[in-house]
Amino acid sequence: MSENVVIVGGVAAGMSAASQAKRRKPSLNVIALEKTEFVSYGSCGLPYYIMDIIKKHTDLIAVTKEKFKTERNIDVQTRIEAVSIDPKEGKIHAIDHNEKKDVVFPYDYLAITTGASSIKPAIPGIEHPGIFLLRTLDDGIAVKGYIKSFPVKRTAIIGAGYIGMEMAEVFKGLGFEVVVIEKMPNILGTMDEEITSVVEKTLESNGVRILKSTEVKSFDRKDSGMIKIETSNGGFDVDMVMFGTGVKPNSMIAKAAGALTGAHDAILVNEKMETNIPHVYSAGDCATAKHIVLKKDLYIPMGTTANKQGRIAGANIAGGDETFKGVAGTAVVKVFDLEVARTGLTEKEARDYGFNVVSSVITSRTRAHYYPGSKPITIKVVIDKKKGKLMGAQMVGGEGVAKRIDIVVAGLYEGMTVGELSRLDLSYAPQFAPVWDPLLVAANDALKKV
Amino acid sequence: MSENVVIVGGVAAGMSAASQAKRRKPSLNVIALEKTEFVSYGSCGLPYYIMDIIKKHTDLIAVTKEKFKTERNIDVQTRIEAVSIDPKEGKIHAIDHNEKKDVVFPYDYLAITTGASSIKPAIPGIEHPGIFLLRTLDDGIAVKGYIKSFPVKRTAIIGAGYIGMEMAEVFKGLGFEVVVIEKMPNILGTMDEEITSVVEKTLESNGVRILKSTEVKSFDRKDSGMIKIETSNGGFDVDMVMFGTGVKPNSMIAKAAGALTGAHDAILVNEKMETNIPHVYSAGDCATAKHIVLKKDLYIPMGTTANKQGRIAGANIAGGDETFKGVAGTAVVKVFDLEVARTGLTEKEARDYGFNVVSSVITSRTRAHYYPGSKPITIKVVIDKKKGKLMGAQMVGGEGVAKRIDIVVAGLYEGMTVGELSRLDLSYAPQFAPVWDPLLVAANDALKKV
Repeated sequence: MSENVVIVGGVAAGMSAASQAKRRKPSLNVIALEKTEFVSYGSCGLPYYIMDIIKKHTDLIAVTKEKFKTERNIDVQTRIEAVSIDPKEGKIHAIDHNEKKDVVFPYDYLAITTGASSIKPAIPGIEHPGIFLLRTLDDGIAVKGYIKSFPVKRTAIIGAGYIGMEMAEVFKGLGFEVVVIEKMPNILGTMDEEITSVVEKTLESNGVRILKSTEVKSFDRKDSGMIKIETSNGGFDVDMVMFGTGVKPNSMIAKAAGALTGAHDAILVNEKMETNIPHVYSAGDCATAKHIVLKKDLYIPMGTTANKQGRIAGANIAGGDETFKGVAGTAVVKVFDLEVARTGLTEKEARDYGFNVVSSVITSRTRAHYYPGSKPITIKVVIDKKKGKLMGAQMVGGEGVAKRIDIVVAGLYEGMTVGELSRLDLSYAPQFAPVWDPLLVAANDALKKV
Repeated sequence: MSENVVIVGGVAAGMSAASQAKRRKPSLNVIALEKTEFVSYGSCGLPYYIMDIIKKHTDLIAVTKEKFKTERNIDVQTRIEAVSIDPKEGKIHAIDHNEKKDVVFPYDYLAITTGASSIKPAIPGIEHPGIFLLRTLDDGIAVKGYIKSFPVKRTAIIGAGYIGMEMAEVFKGLGFEVVVIEKMPNILGTMDEEITSVVEKTLESNGVRILKSTEVKSFDRKDSGMIKIETSNGGFDVDMVMFGTGVKPNSMIAKAAGALTGAHDAILVNEKMETNIPHVYSAGDCATAKHIVLKKDLYIPMGTTANKQGRIAGANIAGGDETFKGVAGTAVVKVFDLEVARTGLTEKEARDYGFNVVSSVITSRTRAHYYPGSKPITIKVVIDKKKGKLMGAQMVGGEGVAKRIDIVVAGLYEGMTVGELSRLDLSYAPQFAPVWDPLLVAANDALKKV
């Protein structure tokens, strides 16, 4: 008899796990349960769907439910919400929102890939219409629908993280006024100030108002549909509010079934993506990931990690012996004309974790001095003071940032020193870099401090 | 008394050596001799100077002769041609083309940074006006002057290497007809066929005619100024010919003084950039460079290497103890809308050197499937068959190639395996890559073959 594999959650990690398990061992009976209507969509594209540079929400879907069935022989069931796991019996209890009834799925192997939910702070009035989160495809559809039906002119974004930055560009692109309200003293809290100050200037020059160290106290909705925001820094009337205040892992049903959790209450997994419950795997935004610099299990939800972990979970469910090597904390975000990226540890993070580090910040250009279209690029390199081992890097510039940070990513995985970095035979042509690549300039500068 | 440092050749390696020596040890008396009128120019920009997207030849100069004097206290003497070295006496004999007289420069330390010359094959008629090389700033000025004064319509490029490819784009951009004549059966001989076939299609779709396996027999110049080219594949009438048939090291005076040479007769240097003659260093396009994959001294002249080697020669002349770690054979070239890059060994090179390798070629996209403006990218990864160690990679695509190849560069220096490559936490946002970066797709595909 063929074994049952049940996947709970049908987005990045879940559908990667399902696909990999089925590909490796076609005899498996793979069922994926998804709470919403949609599976396998690119949630990172939601801001651009709202901006209308991606026209239809279906464009965000990589593989449809139907195609999973016909092309991969995976049974995807949508609007099925898993509510509890019975590890002893090997069963999942769920609610079928289509038929409005309870259902049970027996499993031999289970992958919990329930993802994460937006954090919705307990602010009075947060339930008013016109106040949105942006996490699921449903969220994106709701936001786009609101903008079409309501004469939006003024918007507020709560939280100056990645989503907040992207949405500032989106709302400006749609012609709205934008105020970004951030509780902390800095925007982009996962980056150091030398980088965020460059981003801040760009936001301002694009007409985005930024309020830092500002707490939202309450929302009120007037009869006109306008939302009044009270903050520690005064009040604002806007037509629409978008929250980008981070996410939390959907680990509740796993915990209830006895799964151990780690950082941020995410499901603790080992490098095979196993939880502590036999035959139960987890992956993606609901799970932890080992940080390769810190050698600690952290919670850093990312679409790329979800795909990688999901694939490994699927491979191991199918009898494989794959391991997840860990994350470097890499991220890149586009903010107007800037590309902003990080990997490893920021200086602040490194110091908070007790490392003895030094750093170097340089500003160079993205092309040869004589080649037109060159843009500034600022690079910060964080290194171990004693041996000069790379601990992390951050970059902000007009082009060539996303893949330039990846050179440092490779270095972090290999334990490269900044001296070794400074000697790399990096590619050069006048269109793509100065003859001394900005990263080499940064490395040479940092080298002086070891 | 202060020591005399003489630098022979005032472009990339030479002026890097001069600057570094003086910076490290200001008491040194540093003199740089340059045969032509120009020092410290970016020869990689010459095609774009001809295309007129760089307006003045002086725009290509990074630091002028005068600035070297006033800002760095380096005595740059132009139109001084070194003709022989007397290592016993510690003297350089030279011709001063300004004063038309012989001159002698005593040295305590010498850096030979004489660069390379274009290879001008012994083809009958090659001396005719309208037939050009492209190596020095003088060459660039001559080509641009010819185009301004002569009604050029049809051009031929001999040699389909990097310069040939760039010049094809330049001449097309100027509205000329272009035929590229290549002796070998493939264009871009330093890349494998899976990559060059993509480039070839782009050349053709841009109206560039390509003749492979075609040898030039002779040139003849008609009274009209038109040049008749006879080839093994028929005759052509063109208005102008550009040679891009590679370079050879200017190692003659070093050899005459007893310097050992290596590959392609380039001056053999150790990792400190010392030649076998005491107190005589060499760097740049006239010298060898250790290949980090092959662990052999090769001749791979590149502007980036010249800068790095020059800096190390200068540092060591000033009493430092710096070493050059070697090159990876990295190169990138823009050809119309394509970026084409390589590092490490091609499959052909690896096999020629006797390695047991396998390779993988994949084609993916440069952005998320739903994000507009995505372009195809083809990646070839070459790995050691036994252990999966990275041996090299090549890429061709519409964007994001130059710095993506550098991820592999970092891996090559660290002895990374393709399995390790496949696990890197590379940056992702929909504008910059699909959620599985094309390089990870290539690595995962190659991994199956280990």
